[in-house]
Amino acid sequence: MIGRRGLLATAGVLAAAYAMPAAAQEVVEKRVFEAGAFQTRGGATIKNTRIGYQTMGRLNAAGDNAVLICHFFSGNSQAFGRLSANGPAGYWDAIIGPGKAIDTDHYFVVSADTLVNVNVPDANTVTTGPASINPDTGRPWGMSFPVIAMRDFVEVQKKLLDSLGVKRLALVAGPSNGGLQSIEWAAAYPDFVQRVMPVISAEIDAWMQGWLDIWEAPIRLDPNWREGDYYGQGREPPLRGLAEAWKIVTLHARDRPWARQFDRKLPEGQDPARRIGDRFAIEKWLDDAALARARTSDANSFLYMVRANQLFLNDYPDLSTAMQGAARRWLVVPAPTDRVFLLEGVREFVDVLQKAGKQVEVAEVGGTLGHLNGVVGMAPLTERIRGLLAQ
Amino acid sequence: MIGRRGLLATAGVLAAAYAMPAAAQEVVEKRVFEAGAFQTRGGATIKNTRIGYQTMGRLNAAGDNAVLICHFFSGNSQAFGRLSANGPAGYWDAIIGPGKAIDTDHYFVVSADTLVNVNVPDANTVTTGPASINPDTGRPWGMSFPVIAMRDFVEVQKKLLDSLGVKRLALVAGPSNGGLQSIEWAAAYPDFVQRVMPVISAEIDAWMQGWLDIWEAPIRLDPNWREGDYYGQGREPPLRGLAEAWKIVTLHARDRPWARQFDRKLPEGQDPARRIGDRFAIEKWLDDAALARARTSDANSFLYMVRANQLFLNDYPDLSTAMQGAARRWLVVPAPTDRVFLLEGVREFVDVLQKAGKQVEVAEVGGTLGHLNGVVGMAPLTERIRGLLAQ
Repeated sequence: MIGRRGLLATAGVLAAAYAMPAAAQEVVEKRVFEAGAFQTRGGATIKNTRIGYQTMGRLNAAGDNAVLICHFFSGNSQAFGRLSANGPAGYWDAIIGPGKAIDTDHYFVVSADTLVNVNVPDANTVTTGPASINPDTGRPWGMSFPVIAMRDFVEVQKKLLDSLGVKRLALVAGPSNGGLQSIEWAAAYPDFVQRVMPVISAEIDAWMQGWLDIWEAPIRLDPNWREGDYYGQGREPPLRGLAEAWKIVTLHARDRPWARQFDRKLPEGQDPARRIGDRFAIEKWLDDAALARARTSDANSFLYMVRANQLFLNDYPDLSTAMQGAARRWLVVPAPTDRVFLLEGVREFVDVLQKAGKQVEVAEVGGTLGHLNGVVGMAPLTERIRGLLAQ
Repeated sequence: MIGRRGLLATAGVLAAAYAMPAAAQEVVEKRVFEAGAFQTRGGATIKNTRIGYQTMGRLNAAGDNAVLICHFFSGNSQAFGRLSANGPAGYWDAIIGPGKAIDTDHYFVVSADTLVNVNVPDANTVTTGPASINPDTGRPWGMSFPVIAMRDFVEVQKKLLDSLGVKRLALVAGPSNGGLQSIEWAAAYPDFVQRVMPVISAEIDAWMQGWLDIWEAPIRLDPNWREGDYYGQGREPPLRGLAEAWKIVTLHARDRPWARQFDRKLPEGQDPARRIGDRFAIEKWLDDAALARARTSDANSFLYMVRANQLFLNDYPDLSTAMQGAARRWLVVPAPTDRVFLLEGVREFVDVLQKAGKQVEVAEVGGTLGHLNGVVGMAPLTERIRGLLAQ
């Protein structure tokens, strides 16, 4: 049985186990970008915005060999490399590095932590969000932090890329929430972005807005949430509610074949056929994994991350309009057994791109993990990614 | 926009709108079956078990023209007919009645409320469960009610059929949880059951056990739940938690095309791009629908209903073994866009039946509603159902 690990850790470990490259792993340095005052799409100003980032490879003189990787809902900038020689590899390390699909001998690869990143307790994540100190009050923002849209993620990243001297992105890519950021990038900066590779993502329609609400609902139910006012001494964070929220994400992001290991299994001492409070094996695993993940994340940030996703392409009246003027070259990567971004939805998204005259290819990512295949199963797509970059 | 209606009401109304039969609606009488003392599969005894039921048509002298219809998770015995001349029609009224697919001019059709039925506040639902009075204490059982397995549903129904003089079932059928009961019936009484029609259902594997746990989790998070001890004066039921639970079921049981009516819509006065507490249109609809459903159901019963589902075929080591000795003739009806019982799972179930040498046909039920297609979209399958009954 799989041990107690959070989503982030699981993804890293699985990537290492499934796709360990022969080449030596690269050690990357986590840096902080001080974005200063930032005006959100919603009209608010955050005075001291900062996010973490990391890079690999070298920017060329023209500034046009850059690749931006955007992270998934629960991830951070560590898409590639290790933060120390013995640390875990980044979630897409199998396709990013010297000689790999996104070859850092030729490309300058950048990845940043988003605003309202959920991994607040993680020393290697640097973000600005509801757990940050509001300079006007000296106390954590909590739910008074401004609403952040997906487009705001893009705008802060744009400032970062400008500060690094990037003039053009050869590629913007990412899985899930990272794919949504990539699509938002393609709409916002069509001339700046040469190629787009959204993986396990498609439009956030009302169906997905509803599911995102279901993900977050347990946080608001937890009496410890206190309308977001749980920071500070003597207060308990809404750990149970946050764990239930992660439980939904954890199962939703996987698939039936993964769950087979738990079929007809009971945890030691548990007898759910006789005691209503007892657990089945999959329940116990989800309880443990979700609680571990709750301990390394922040509940309010989860709520803001949900909202940012719900506000995908919110500057546009609809998806077709957003894609009309967007970047031209696309490699769209669905996981056919994805239970979050259903294959039907990805197909509709590809239709919209084609009707908008884009140059679109589709490559499926396989595996037994459903949605998570797009995080841990990308190595077999190496030639497709090289092909995209060669166009 | 769809108004405020619970699942049960929605299903009834949709059935009426989509498939109103030309024939006059039949008025049926709701009756009570006193099953007396009942021993559960878990080894407990319930002294005074009772369930509601209804019938249409006449049992023949041989007692072998009976059909049993089993209800879905949130349903009750009203699969067919109206309880009063102007009342709503049963959820499968389009296929059950005089001259319909399951023709009550020829068949004696029975449908019963399950044990631990969730519709406790509904005067037309009669059930025994955690909200019932424990005769040993004179107080509601709450979470001291014995665990009920899917097989217990079958055993109480068997007592009811015996009391009615039924010697053989020409067909046992039902949607979702009703399909699971049908499969359990086929395994438990292979000689008593001639034909089986499970609709939008398949095995409850660990994947589904996990999802069922996610459905119920908000109830346990609600501080008003109090470990199930919320009955009686001065206590509030866990309405918020129960509503969140129904919200998950409500969205899970639908599909993307249904949600399109909410795309890019905002409820009046709501501005979720600027206010973190504000709602999108689909969230508002789900909030309202789920709260209405919570007011007409019981939280503890929801927990027990989940457990009964998780204990599907729990008397057998695995599905293949359970199906080896099961009834022979099957019509399996998946909804291809079902997001609860995924099409892949139904296909695996059909494979198991075929390997066990059963005579199996498959008929898909279409529509825009995903899982709910199997409740409201059955009329087009009329000839397939007639064909099954003619075999």
